[in-house]
Parts: sequence; structure tokens; C-alpha cells
Amino acid sequence: MKVMRKKITLYLLYLCLVASLHATGDLTQYVNPLYGTQWGGNVFIGTTRPNAIVKIGPDCTNHPNSGYDINCQRIKGFSHTHVSGTGGAPKYGNILMQPYSGNLTLNDYSSSFSGLNSSVGKFETHLDRYNIDVRLCSTERAAIHEYIFNQADSLGILIDCGHFLCPETENEENQILVGSEVKILSDREITGYSRVRNGWNRGNAYTVYFYAVSDTPASDFGVWECNNKYPGLNVITDSGNPVGCWLEFDSNGSFRQSVKIKVGISYISQEKAKQNLNNQLNHWNLDRVEFETKKEWNKILNTVKIETDTPDYMTMFYTALYHNYLMPVDKTGENPKWQSTEPYFDDFYTVWDTYRTTHPLLTILTPAFQSRIIRSLIDIYEHQNYMPDGRSGDDNGRTQGGSNCDILIADAYIKGLRGINYNKALEAMIKNAEIPPGNDERKEGRGGISDYNNLGYVSVNFERSLTRTFEYAACDFAIATVANGLNKHDLYKKYLKRSGNWKNLWHDGLESYGAKGFASARHSNGEWLKDFNPGQAGSWTGHVYESHSWEMSLYVPHDIPGLISKCGNKELFEARLDTFFHKSKPSNISWINTFFNVNNEPGFLTPCLYHWIGKPQKSSQVAREIIKKHFRAGTNALPGNDDSGALSAFLAFHLMGFYPVAGQDLYIIMAPHLKSVQIQLENGNTFSIICKNLGPKRQYIQSIMLNGKPFKQSWFHHKDIVAGGKFIFEMGPKPVDWTENALPPPALDLIQASAK
Amino acid sequence: MKVMRKKITLYLLYLCLVASLHATGDLTQYVNPLYGTQWGGNVFIGTTRPNAIVKIGPDCTNHPNSGYDINCQRIKGFSHTHVSGTGGAPKYGNILMQPYSGNLTLNDYSSSFSGLNSSVGKFETHLDRYNIDVRLCSTERAAIHEYIFNQADSLGILIDCGHFLCPETENEENQILVGSEVKILSDREITGYSRVRNGWNRGNAYTVYFYAVSDTPASDFGVWECNNKYPGLNVITDSGNPVGCWLEFDSNGSFRQSVKIKVGISYISQEKAKQNLNNQLNHWNLDRVEFETKKEWNKILNTVKIETDTPDYMTMFYTALYHNYLMPVDKTGENPKWQSTEPYFDDFYTVWDTYRTTHPLLTILTPAFQSRIIRSLIDIYEHQNYMPDGRSGDDNGRTQGGSNCDILIADAYIKGLRGINYNKALEAMIKNAEIPPGNDERKEGRGGISDYNNLGYVSVNFERSLTRTFEYAACDFAIATVANGLNKHDLYKKYLKRSGNWKNLWHDGLESYGAKGFASARHSNGEWLKDFNPGQAGSWTGHVYESHSWEMSLYVPHDIPGLISKCGNKELFEARLDTFFHKSKPSNISWINTFFNVNNEPGFLTPCLYHWIGKPQKSSQVAREIIKKHFRAGTNALPGNDDSGALSAFLAFHLMGFYPVAGQDLYIIMAPHLKSVQIQLENGNTFSIICKNLGPKRQYIQSIMLNGKPFKQSWFHHKDIVAGGKFIFEMGPKPVDWTENALPPPALDLIQASAK
Repeated sequence: MKVMRKKITLYLLYLCLVASLHATGDLTQYVNPLYGTQWGGNVFIGTTRPNAIVKIGPDCTNHPNSGYDINCQRIKGFSHTHVSGTGGAPKYGNILMQPYSGNLTLNDYSSSFSGLNSSVGKFETHLDRYNIDVRLCSTERAAIHEYIFNQADSLGILIDCGHFLCPETENEENQILVGSEVKILSDREITGYSRVRNGWNRGNAYTVYFYAVSDTPASDFGVWECNNKYPGLNVITDSGNPVGCWLEFDSNGSFRQSVKIKVGISYISQEKAKQNLNNQLNHWNLDRVEFETKKEWNKILNTVKIETDTPDYMTMFYTALYHNYLMPVDKTGENPKWQSTEPYFDDFYTVWDTYRTTHPLLTILTPAFQSRIIRSLIDIYEHQNYMPDGRSGDDNGRTQGGSNCDILIADAYIKGLRGINYNKALEAMIKNAEIPPGNDERKEGRGGISDYNNLGYVSVNFERSLTRTFEYAACDFAIATVANGLNKHDLYKKYLKRSGNWKNLWHDGLESYGAKGFASARHSNGEWLKDFNPGQAGSWTGHVYESHSWEMSLYVPHDIPGLISKCGNKELFEARLDTFFHKSKPSNISWINTFFNVNNEPGFLTPCLYHWIGKPQKSSQVAREIIKKHFRAGTNALPGNDDSGALSAFLAFHLMGFYPVAGQDLYIIMAPHLKSVQIQLENGNTFSIICKNLGPKRQYIQSIMLNGKPFKQSWFHHKDIVAGGKFIFEMGPKPVDWTENALPPPALDLIQASAK
Repeated sequence: MKVMRKKITLYLLYLCLVASLHATGDLTQYVNPLYGTQWGGNVFIGTTRPNAIVKIGPDCTNHPNSGYDINCQRIKGFSHTHVSGTGGAPKYGNILMQPYSGNLTLNDYSSSFSGLNSSVGKFETHLDRYNIDVRLCSTERAAIHEYIFNQADSLGILIDCGHFLCPETENEENQILVGSEVKILSDREITGYSRVRNGWNRGNAYTVYFYAVSDTPASDFGVWECNNKYPGLNVITDSGNPVGCWLEFDSNGSFRQSVKIKVGISYISQEKAKQNLNNQLNHWNLDRVEFETKKEWNKILNTVKIETDTPDYMTMFYTALYHNYLMPVDKTGENPKWQSTEPYFDDFYTVWDTYRTTHPLLTILTPAFQSRIIRSLIDIYEHQNYMPDGRSGDDNGRTQGGSNCDILIADAYIKGLRGINYNKALEAMIKNAEIPPGNDERKEGRGGISDYNNLGYVSVNFERSLTRTFEYAACDFAIATVANGLNKHDLYKKYLKRSGNWKNLWHDGLESYGAKGFASARHSNGEWLKDFNPGQAGSWTGHVYESHSWEMSLYVPHDIPGLISKCGNKELFEARLDTFFHKSKPSNISWINTFFNVNNEPGFLTPCLYHWIGKPQKSSQVAREIIKKHFRAGTNALPGNDDSGALSAFLAFHLMGFYPVAGQDLYIIMAPHLKSVQIQLENGNTFSIICKNLGPKRQYIQSIMLNGKPFKQSWFHHKDIVAGGKFIFEMGPKPVDWTENALPPPALDLIQASAK
């Protein structure tokens, strides 16, 4: 019996081990597109393929940025173009379709809905008003809608070419109609377009063309212009008004009558839209489209296999990966502005948000893909003068802090991404650094660069002067990195010197909550701005963008030792970090209780900064608190705007147990949340992190082995990944420094090393 | 008999009087579109209506800027969009059609031709290779082609959507294909587009859509992509390649078989092109189109009735008027970039060329039209950041010297053009003056403005520094003019002061050919550029644009007394002018023998400058030499590039006997070449200049009467025109000063007067 009991115990233990979740096979089951719709995550909930042009989903009458948010009460219809995880005003929402029964009421054809079923490959809902079930699937450049009319006498589908996402409140970022057109070609075919300008990036006009075909011939049809219906008319020519059309179908008397409609989308022409449809969707089988969409997503998701005892981590992690392959959008072959042999990507929203986490993640999982993105940025510079910070609708627009493509380029360079013309890239970076964009200094390049280059800092004569100075310094370091690699020593020296410009805004005398010395705002004559408050949150037009000096004063990723020295010493720096993460502060943004705001990119690296004072265990402690407090599985998955996946990627890295220092050959080791991570690299190698003895009470790294040898560093390099390094972390209950006081190498040393 | 003889004598005298040409009735007979095709006049020779989008004409295989020039040997076909009188590389030449007999040879379907018959309303030629007669007529947005196939077994028409004007030599200003598409809709209908970018103004992509219908059903058809033919296929989708199609028609055995094809053109969509065709050309009668085109042109031409004994003057004058209503193009309702209730004009090529003469001419003859142009410039500022200097294909591009829309606005303001928001216009002018355009400082605004605003001049750190400084000063005076009128006294003072900045580049020590004191180029540290040669012609990238210091040093239209003083005194100024007009100089441009270059806008006002030293008769002497030497009736009508009509307008003013000082309420009286000029004003009044006793040996003004009273001025004001002033000039053999030493009023006085 004893033996038996022992066997049973072993067997139970085995079962328990098996029960711990292995990510295998169809990982799309762990993606939930609805996660992140609450708390302003702004994620897209419809269906799409990785980085695809077509993103079909519901557009709610409250006009949220991605078409839907948790406050949605009524669905206006289903449009084909969206963004995901964006701030500012909405963009896109073009070519909207809505099925209806009964009479078509143009002034309001929206419906309340029951049930939102969104999974990778399909979106489903039910429109109450019309008693219609909706199912949507899509390829890269085409979509298929199935509308099931329940007990309907009359069956209709409308196509609104004048619709686009635009909230009712006036905003200079709102989209504006330029024109629209529709033509019913036959009883099954419709074509047309929607031409819209402005939007969050204040871009020039873009045109979304479509070609649609239904599986059922229409028995009746008509077009409209503004709110005037023209039954039986088949075309409305563009006169600048919103136009649309409707098709009506005979009831066949069935209880549930299905009508399918397929739609090709193009930014080039209606014929191209038709070609896209014909190339990508030459059948009517939604299941097949859904299956193939899952297959495409599985290619991405299966690059990382994880193991965890916490089921929520599975959905949190894979949904995070999913969010990182929604944008930018691959529009290669769909560029209406120039021809090129280079790839073409659009919808950078914005690089300032994504350079820290999204792109470093892409660089590990899909480096060839990241390389194509970089090439497209350089091609945009070639044809439209500057690499974008923000870009949408084929037009650059909205810089946030720096000219952060510079850091993307440096990151690609030091990580050895291939196929990129780095000499041309350096030229584009120097353009950012030297040539004032002029006119609208929010559009591209570096606003206030004339000050920065003359004074060594951006003065208060320009908006966002503190943020810009700190970010430009970091971007200059990126330029120095690439210049050094390309053996351009004069350029290297010049930009390395400039990368110290953040010190010109360091005001030693400023004090706040026990810390002394802060970044401050400064007049062009050298005088400090009076009454500058380091804890005061700034705005678009203020000195500190989407941040405050408490946060920005810790953003010197390229010279953290220099920063520590400016803060006094390691002890004072530690105390400052402690205050930053834990001090309750009086804030004008009520939901941020500490100086640290997890939802704000400038502070993304800050939880790792304890590493530089030899306390990597403290970094992990802080990070664990953050992840636990702010991230979960559910519509409340994200603590704020996903920023095109940047926030999701922040989560993904912390779950895996390391964090990238963007633009540098440096990954910071943090205590993982997952039992194991295996990354299937493009070069065939597998990079893995195995956490031994991870448990609710054993969350801290005690020691590390890399490829079977003890590893006493709190960081590693990109070569450790690409060579297929195998990390084994021994976990335990106590936060300890496993490095014996080893500090991450200075960024300057990394530059030198990368050039060799 | 004596009585009889007397009667006969009187009758002969009467006949003689009648024989002197009166401009009446169909004045289009005096327009010859072929005049100006030699000597680089670059005029458009096809057929068009005033300021119309459609300009249909031949495109020669040597790819001249307007499709044709005197060197044309072979015609590739007939395209629908052109410019007229432009430098730089060509723009447009879109949607080309060519009739053919025999087999279609895609690699070269051009033909030599016999006879070019171009008159207002129609263009005709004969294609030798195919033995086809061609006749073309057009409306504002549509064209009709008639091809008569002589003794042909096979009849074909091709439409090349991949064609555009582009010389073989590489040039950064060359147009570049973005994509094209064609679709044969039926045996009579074709639609498609051509999308092209770059060109002289280095603009973004524009798309020309067309819809064509033939009167004869095609019996055969096909499409091509690159040079691959696809017989029987009816559509080629845009993949970035040049595409086209052909239609072939059955021979009906007739000796001369006609096939007509009508084409609608649009910048919005194919449907809009169809609508444009249907709205403007709902019949097949070319005679009717020609008649209506003549009617439209007669409306313009009949605003001025002239009388002359010199038949050539009739064609020279009316052809000059014709040239001034070819551009800019009225694209109201055809703007693909934004909606507006304001008019929309494109193809400013460039305002730097046309502000001096073309627009002042338009302001007199058709002020409501000029007002619409100004409104469109302000609307462009509203939607695209800056008023253009050059603009084409819906995109600003290429500044030449100044931001010369400023002078257009001032000209409109002081001449009382209505319907213009002058406050908004002032905002646009100040944008020019204050905000560096950044990035590409050749695109719009004022390049080098940072220097100008910091140093008081543009230093040699920027290209075209001397030209820019002088032109910016003149533009600042225009701003001061409008600011003063709107009672913005601080702005008035500021820009008035800045209008003196030309003095900062006046180098008192420079000597050349006996004159002392010249505009020179200067370093940013204040030092003069060494070895600067006032007679050395500059270039796009040099210090003096399309000019030299001898010429630019005389361009201070807003402070001529100040300029005279800088030149020493009246005597030295006169000597300098004499040298300028008569001194043979060693030039690197061999066809310019004197410092004066009639074909160059910066010197347009210079022949009038003797007025300011009290010798208006000498101005007339010089001007007469110029007109006689350089202008004639014939293909050699113009001594150089017509510059969108600027050169033709220069001629028209001198023929009439007065010359406008653009941006000021000042017209300079010059000895007329015409016996009488009657301008039918929009307000119903008639402004007239009658030259009594004008003859080959009586070419100089002896005295003047205005409205029956002696008039001892060498100038007049705009009110003298609008009030319907009647000038009578008594002409005589001797150049005399009829003013008793009266000098034109200082520009500053005119500002003050205009504000009252």
C-alpha cells in the first residue's frame, strides 16, 4: 500500500505538472481581443490579420478611437479600417456597412446589440433592432460579412461611404470628409470610395477604395447623398458630400436567412480593391477565412512558448503579443504616393510610444519583419523628407517627444538587423537632428531644434521644451551609436557630446519631496523658469509632455551613471526611486497616485533603474508590484492606452523576465512571472529562460546559469539571445543581489563593443 | 471735277482711316497660339478655354515643357493637360491619345506631321505616318477629338495612361509615374487614370482621371502593361506600371472615315470625369465647341479694344492677352485635397514671375476673377500652411525669389479688390515673413528667413541670398501696406522698417563699369563676400537667382528715391541706367548682350526708372528700343520664356502705354504703341488712352489731357482707371518731359493715401 500510495502521490504530482499550462498548438485560444477595452486601452476588437490593412469591426455611435470601447451602447455599422490602442482623436472607420430589416432610416440606422464575440479570426454580434446576427472575417486586404436575418420580411444592407470615426465634440484633430462616391455595378456588385483628411495626425487626404460583391442578388437598390435617398439610382458622383447606397434582398421565407457580402479594400483604386478581393477571397467560406487567419496569427504567437501555473498569464501574454502585431500596417503595394522597391508601412502611432518595447519585441521575435519596417521608415524619409514619429493615412504627423526613429535605427544597428541601408538611415537621423522641420513643428523632425542646436537645450520659447531636450539628447546618443558603427568619427564625437545636453536643463537647486536636483524649464537667456514644480504634470503645449519632471528627470537611458551622479549618489538615487514609486502625491490626474505612471512611456525603464545601484532585486520587487496592481485578464486588462501595443509589450517583457534598453545592446534581467519561456528564433536557435522553483512565495532570483555556467550579471546582450542562450533562474523567497554588486556596463562601452 | 476730286480725296482719306485696324467683333482672329514657340517661349499651342483644366494639344517626342516647341519632329499623341510658358522640367501631359492605322507598335507609335493649324477653339494637324487628319476642340473640363482616317484599311485609337511629359535626360525635376489604370467599359467607353509625382515643383502625387466615349463602336480592343499587349482584355489594374489600351474600328470603305472620341477629365474620380463630360459636352459637334470656345475667349479679349495702323500689333496684343488667361487653372470643385466654399486655382508657375505684370493686368481687365485667384491663395494657406509661390498638381513647390503672394495681396488691397478676407491674408503674409518653412526651403515661404530676421539680410549660408534679401524687403513693404490699411500700426512699423533691409546688402565700395555701389553677397559675420562680381550671372544655388547684381541692384520698387541716393545722385543713377541698357557686357549667357535682359522679371520695371529722375521721355525711348528689338508677330514672337504670360503682359502694357508698379497704387505712363486703347471695365466704365498724331516719326508724348484737363504727371493711380479716365496723349517727334520735372510720389506716400 505504501508503494501504492507513493505511486499515487507521484501520479498526482505528475498530473499537477501536466496541469501547469503549456503553450502549444493553437495559441490563438489565448488571445482575447476584448481585453483592454476598459480603462481607455483603446484596443481594436474586430478581426484582422497580423499588421493587415483591413481591420473590420464595429463602429459605435460614441465614436471611440478604435471604433469600440466599453461605453458603446449602439453600433452604427461595421467599417473596414481602424487603429488600435491610440490616443488623440480617431482615424479611419471607412466604408461602413450595416445590415437592416424594415425601412432604412438614414438619420439613424444604428442598433443596440447583444453579445460581442471576438476571437482571433472572427467577430460576432447580434443587432437587437434588426434581429440580425453578424459574423465578420477578413484577410489582409479583404473582408467577408455574413448577416443572418432572423424572421425578417425585408432584408437590407447599406454601405455608408461618407462615414468615418469622428466624435461630436469639435477638435482640431477630427477627421474631415473630402468626398465620397458609390456606384452599384450590378445586382451583386458595388464599388466606391471615401476620401478623408485630418484626424489625429492632421494629415492630408487619404482615399479608401472598395469593391463589394454579395452572394445574393439584390432585388432593389438605391443611393443617397447627404440624407436624400434616390431609389433605383445606381451612382452618385463625388461632389464633396457623404454618399452611400443600399441593397435589398427578397426574403426566401426561411427562419434564418443568410446574406454574405465580400469587400476588397485598397488605397490605390477601385480596380485594385477588386483585385485584392479576387486575390485573397475567391470563395464564400467564412470558416476557411477564420482558419487561415488563425494560422497567420499562430505563426507569430508560436514564436514564444510559455509555461505557467497561472492561467490568466496565458491570455495576458498572448493577447499582449497580439496587440504588438496590429500596427504599423503593411501597405506594401498600396502606396498611392510613390513607387518603391522598398516595403511600405503606415500607421505609426507613434514611434515615441513603441520604440521602447514594441519594436525591441519585434526585433527578437520577427527580426526580418522589423527590418522591413525600418526600411520603410527610411523610404518615407527618401520620399517625404523625414522619417515619421506619428504617421497615418500616408502622411507624417504628430511628433511627441523626440525624433524616436533615431532610436529604432540604433536598436536595429546594434542588434545586427540586415538589409538596411544604414548610411542612408544615418542621413535621415542627421536630418532630424539638424534641419528644423519648420512651419508645423508638431509634424515631423525635431521641433525647437534651432534652440537645442544654438543653446544646448530647448528653451521655453518652444512647447514641450523639457521633454524635447531630454529626448533629443537620447536621440543624439542613438546617432552617435550608428555614426560610430559606420566609422564616422567626427559625427560620433559631435552627437556624443550633444547627448549630454540633458545636463543643461538639470537644475541642481530644485527640491521636491526630499529629492534635490531636477530637470527644469529654462528661458533662452539661461535663466530658470520661476516656480517650476517638478511634480506638476505637463501637457502638449507645456514644458513636459504627458509627464512631469519627477518622471523625465529619470529618463536618461544613455547615461544612467551620469544621472545618478547628478542626483547626488547611489543612496540619494535609491531614495528618489523609492519616493518615485511609493510616495502618494497630490496630482491633478486623480488616478495616478504615485509619481510613477505605468501607462506612460517615459517611465517604462524606471522600474529597472535599481540595477544601476547594484540592487537588481529591488527592480524586480517594484516591477512585481506594478504588474500585479495594473495588469489582469479581462476587459480591464490594461491600465490605460495600449499605445499601439507598447503597454502590452511592457507587460510581455516583464512576464518573461527581462526588459530591453531600446537603442542599446542591453537587456535587464528581472524576476520572471512565467515558469518557462522558449523563443523560437528566425535563425533556428531557441532562446530560453527556465525558472526553477518559481512559486507564489518564491518569486525572486537567487542565482542564474547561462548555458550551464554561473552567470553573475543583472543584464545580458543581444548575442545571448541570437545564439540561443539557455538561462536557468533559481528562484527563491528572498530578494537578493545575485550579481555580487556587478553593475550594467555604461552605454558608451556598449557603443564601442558594438562597433567591433 | 474739282469738287469731285476733293470728294475722292476725302473718300480715300476715309478709306485710309477705315483701313487702320479697329479691334471689334471676333477678336480671336488676332490670337495665334503658335506665336512664341521659338526662342524658348514655351507657350502651349493646343486648344483650351480661359484658365481651363483641359488643355489638349500635341506631345512631341522631344518632350518640351508645354508638349510642343519649334524643334518638334514627331508627335507622340495628344494629351489633355499642359502648362504654358514655363521653365524647369515639364509637368503634366496626361492621358495621351493617338490615332493610328496599320499595326499598333507600342515601342514607338509617334508620327511626323504636316501642318499645324492652331487657332482659338481648335487645333488641327495631319499625321504623316498614319495618313490621319486630327482635329481637337475642348471645353473647360472635356475635350473632343476627331480623327479622319484617309484611305485606311485599319482604324485604331490608343490611350496611353502611362504617358507624361518627361525628357530623357535625368533631372531631379522630372515627373515620375506612381501608377496608372485603364478599363474598357463597353465597345464605346473607356475610363482610367494616370498618377504622377514630382515634376518641376517636386510635388506630391496627382491623379488625372478620364472617361472617354467614341461615336463609333470598336470592333476590336485590348490593353497593355509596360510593352506587353493583351488583346481582348478589357482592364489592367494599377500595379505601378504604365498601362494603356487600344480600340480598333471597322473600315466602312469610305475615302475619309471619321472617328470621334470625347474625353472628360477630373482630378477627383472617373465618375467625376464622366460627369464633367456629360455636363459640358453632350453632343458630337466640334464646330459648336469651337464656336463656344471662341465666345469664351472673346469675353476676355473684348475687354480691350485697340486701334493701330500696324497689323502685327493686333496679333501681338491679343495673343499677349490670350497668354495671360491660360494659367492659373480654375479647379474649383476639382480639389482632391480639401473641401472649401472658396475658389480653387492651381498651376501658379510662379507668382514670382506673374506678380509684376500678369496679375496687375488681370486686376484691370477682370478684377472679380483676380479676386477669386487671391481667395484661392488664402484658402491654400488655410489648408496647406503657406500661400504658394509655385504650385502645380495640387501641391506647393518651388519658391524663386521672394514670397511674392505678399505683393499680390498688397496689390489687391490697394486696388480695392472685393470679397477678400484681408485679415486672413495678412496672417498668411506674416506666416511667410516669420515662420521658416524648414526642411525644403525651396518649397514655400521664405528660405533663409532665419538669417534675414536675425541679421537683417540673408547671408551666403543660404542659396540665392542676395536675391532673397532684396525680394524679402519688397515683400515686407507689401506687408506694411496691408497692415497700415488694416490699422495694425505695430505691424506696419515693423515691416516698414524691415523693408529697408536691402540696404544691408548694399556694398558702397563695389565698382563695375563706372558705377559704384552695388548689392553684394555677405557672410553671416558681416564680412562681404570676396571677389563678388556685380556682372556675374547667378544661378539657382548661387547668390543671385536668374539675375546678377547689376540687375538686382536696381530692384527696389518700394524705395526708388532711396535707391537713387545709394547710387550717388540722379546723374550717376542715369549714367548707371544708360550703362545697364546699352553697355555690351561679357556674359556667360551669350544671347544677352546688355545687363538688361528683357526676358527676366527682376528687370521688368527698370526701363521705367528714368521717370524717377524726371526723364520719363527716356523711359519711353528705352522701352521702344526693347519692344522693337525683342517682340514681333510670328513663332519668334517672344524673346524667351513667356513665364505663364508674364512676358506677354509686359508687352501688352508697353503697347498700351502704361506700366504697373505691382503692389503699389502707381502706373507709369510710357509712350504708347497703339493709336487707341479702350478698356471695358467690370464696373461699366471705360478707361481709354487716345494717342493723337501717333506715327512712325511721332512716337513721343508731348502733352497729356485727362478727362479734358491738362495732366502734367508721368504716372496715374488705379482710381483713374476705375473711374473710366479718358487720357489723350499728344504725340510728337521729340522725346520731352511733359511733366515739368514732376516725380512719381514716394511709395510711402502711396501707402498713406491708400489707407485713407
